[in-house]
Amino acid sequence: MTLTETAFKKLRDIVGTSNCTRAKEDLACYAYDATARTYMPDTVLFPKNSDEVSAILRLANQYNFFVIPRGSGSGMTGGSLAVNGGVIVVMSRFNRILKIDTDNLIAHVEPGVITSHLHKTVEKQGLFYPPDPASSEFSTLGGNLAECAGGPRAVKYGVTRDYVLGLEVVLPTGEIINTGVQTAKGVVGYDLTRFIVGSEGTLGIITRMVLRLLPLPKAIKTMTVVFDMMETAAEAVSSIIRHSIIPRTIEYMDNASIKCVENHLKLGLPVRAGALLLIEADGNGDEVEKTMEEIKELCMEQGATGFEMAQTKKEAANLWKARKAISSALFKYGPDKINEDIVVPRSKVPDMARKINALRAETGLTMVSFGHAGDGNIHFNIILDKKNKEELKKADTAVEALFDYTLELGGTISGEHGIGITKAPYLAREIGPVELALMKKLKMVFDPKGILNPGKIFSTNGN
Amino acid sequence: MTLTETAFKKLRDIVGTSNCTRAKEDLACYAYDATARTYMPDTVLFPKNSDEVSAILRLANQYNFFVIPRGSGSGMTGGSLAVNGGVIVVMSRFNRILKIDTDNLIAHVEPGVITSHLHKTVEKQGLFYPPDPASSEFSTLGGNLAECAGGPRAVKYGVTRDYVLGLEVVLPTGEIINTGVQTAKGVVGYDLTRFIVGSEGTLGIITRMVLRLLPLPKAIKTMTVVFDMMETAAEAVSSIIRHSIIPRTIEYMDNASIKCVENHLKLGLPVRAGALLLIEADGNGDEVEKTMEEIKELCMEQGATGFEMAQTKKEAANLWKARKAISSALFKYGPDKINEDIVVPRSKVPDMARKINALRAETGLTMVSFGHAGDGNIHFNIILDKKNKEELKKADTAVEALFDYTLELGGTISGEHGIGITKAPYLAREIGPVELALMKKLKMVFDPKGILNPGKIFSTNGN
Repeated sequence: MTLTETAFKKLRDIVGTSNCTRAKEDLACYAYDATARTYMPDTVLFPKNSDEVSAILRLANQYNFFVIPRGSGSGMTGGSLAVNGGVIVVMSRFNRILKIDTDNLIAHVEPGVITSHLHKTVEKQGLFYPPDPASSEFSTLGGNLAECAGGPRAVKYGVTRDYVLGLEVVLPTGEIINTGVQTAKGVVGYDLTRFIVGSEGTLGIITRMVLRLLPLPKAIKTMTVVFDMMETAAEAVSSIIRHSIIPRTIEYMDNASIKCVENHLKLGLPVRAGALLLIEADGNGDEVEKTMEEIKELCMEQGATGFEMAQTKKEAANLWKARKAISSALFKYGPDKINEDIVVPRSKVPDMARKINALRAETGLTMVSFGHAGDGNIHFNIILDKKNKEELKKADTAVEALFDYTLELGGTISGEHGIGITKAPYLAREIGPVELALMKKLKMVFDPKGILNPGKIFSTNGN
Repeated sequence: MTLTETAFKKLRDIVGTSNCTRAKEDLACYAYDATARTYMPDTVLFPKNSDEVSAILRLANQYNFFVIPRGSGSGMTGGSLAVNGGVIVVMSRFNRILKIDTDNLIAHVEPGVITSHLHKTVEKQGLFYPPDPASSEFSTLGGNLAECAGGPRAVKYGVTRDYVLGLEVVLPTGEIINTGVQTAKGVVGYDLTRFIVGSEGTLGIITRMVLRLLPLPKAIKTMTVVFDMMETAAEAVSSIIRHSIIPRTIEYMDNASIKCVENHLKLGLPVRAGALLLIEADGNGDEVEKTMEEIKELCMEQGATGFEMAQTKKEAANLWKARKAISSALFKYGPDKINEDIVVPRSKVPDMARKINALRAETGLTMVSFGHAGDGNIHFNIILDKKNKEELKKADTAVEALFDYTLELGGTISGEHGIGITKAPYLAREIGPVELALMKKLKMVFDPKGILNPGKIFSTNGN
């Protein structure tokens, strides 16, 4: 499946010379993502509307080349990489917020809009788009939808899927479809909308989206809580929720994360703490303050040893600093990072914490875990030097053990990063053969020639 | 596709003689649903586990007979009717709540459990399952999932889809699959779970479900508000939401509904009112009372002319009485009822109210509308005598006009009842030909022989 000169010229005609490149230095800019793996595409295109995307896909079916949709390339599992070469379709020119309907709490948006740009725009109008992946300052909404991104606020507000009402999608065959509704409810025909959300760019290229908004909460309070042990922190999380309190975030950092960030930023973090919780509650008035007091009491009952409550927005931002710095701080410990995204039932977080401690002791590798305690969503990282084959082998074995234990606990191997290429080898540990065969047949209906984003999700597909 | 004697005997062997019937008087009990249309099945089966369901479906593929899954038969669009004959598979023996996990806020449930039974069971443990279709006292969770049921609380809490984490499903080919997760998040492979929810029993028979629960709100307040005109009531609803208040229900009754119920029950309702809103807010403490005061003020600003705030649970139940009595009260006006379930953007509810008034004036038919104002979800009813051909023709024309106007306003022709057989003739007004062709191809992947629940959703399918 190589791109012929004829096909290239036709692609150039579709998007125009200035929106098409195959210069090596340009290709290199679209060869990577957040997995640090690189695959050179044959060509990069910047279409401006769904008709152009449609023409590109029709041509792909005619000339047999692969098409890989791409937002900002901030994906964690390789979803936007041209693993088998082909044409990268960059959606950055689809960058308009078309309409914010304040009466009906919906937004019509193009997929190239940066997530935080939507956040800021709707917040100015007193509205709220809850999904907030850590990458929100640079990831696109199209990428968020393709991966069904989550983020810290999911514990109260759910994930991206819960905010998508309708889509315009170009199918792999080039046909343009509209799915879903612009209203709060709708059950007409099969739910193509939510089937496409989270399908990692393998079933179609999203060219427009109708998103659900909420009224912006008027009050937010932020607090960090220190615990000696991960177990008591996890027990505090369960206790909060058992008391009918759902904060909008319950993030945690384990001891290794705390030490790592402190070493990097010198924020004065409690380096002996077993766990740090970052809790944020929102609402419309004084009840938020009261809720935080209740949370504080519940944490004290579980043996919390320290609290810091932000009094201003600036103080709240400072509390978030440690949590947000983890990913970059990790690179102090080694040139490479294996970054997994598992979910276990909330009550099993302490079991998983113990498992990670055991794996760390066994392998001698630097391992940290942090994430969304309220969801049981754990970001597990191993820091290593991938050139050191022994380290790499140990790390791979640890990841396998971690996945197996995750499934044993009733969890899932991906909470918000998707499968892409990095988790594809492990897919069959979670999804059975009948379910996998069904998924592959459904993919075939959308994409009979297998031209859209090959090699993703299903490890044998397109390789 | 008739059921041969051999096939019947094999079916009897699968479920046992006492769980299998083809006596006319028994068949008649499974020939109807809430649409008041009747279709006699060939046989009714009561399997007890997924293996039996699987064996039935394998046999159906071998002997070419239709299989129609059925809960309580309370569906509004004919989803559980044997429109082409065949075998009704009644899921009533799948009636166990298998596990309520209070730490992780999930329930493992069988599809034959009555919705309100789950409500009561989890509420005793301080938990909450929000979806509450009007039929909750007799509908099953399996039926709720198949139709993606909504209900009054959807304005704050969303619909059934938002509470389904995972499923066990028997495919039309007899294979048993597991979909989704038992955790708060999960993005592994295609989202079969939400593709099957709302697919109206055409893609598989659900045999087990993992449902998401919430903590039970500690405080609930209920109030009715009287308005002279539908327009001002609708404006009040928009104003409430613009002020960042999301009550858990905002139900409305139009003047015709109010008069109809008053005539039937003599509750002392304001028969001259243009609209009555039933508003319920929930939360954890005193803020609910405060919220209700704010709502009251906002309603007064829009010209509300009367309020009634419930002080006790009993008083709240009394306020609900009128809203819940509408459906049965309507039969005072005629032997038959056409019951539609449209959704328009919330801000368009007054436009739709005016349209309904115009249709009433044009046709001279009794028409009432009521429903979920917060969602723009309108239950529109025409009361008539279907034996009167002229009335029936006028009613059909009115329904067509209503659907066209719904779509013109950016709405959808079904918010929570599905398409089934009653709306199948109108499906192509909302869903385009490419989208319809795609849906039919996806159905073929699940059900190559078209044996499961034929004649539903797609009007040409199986007829």
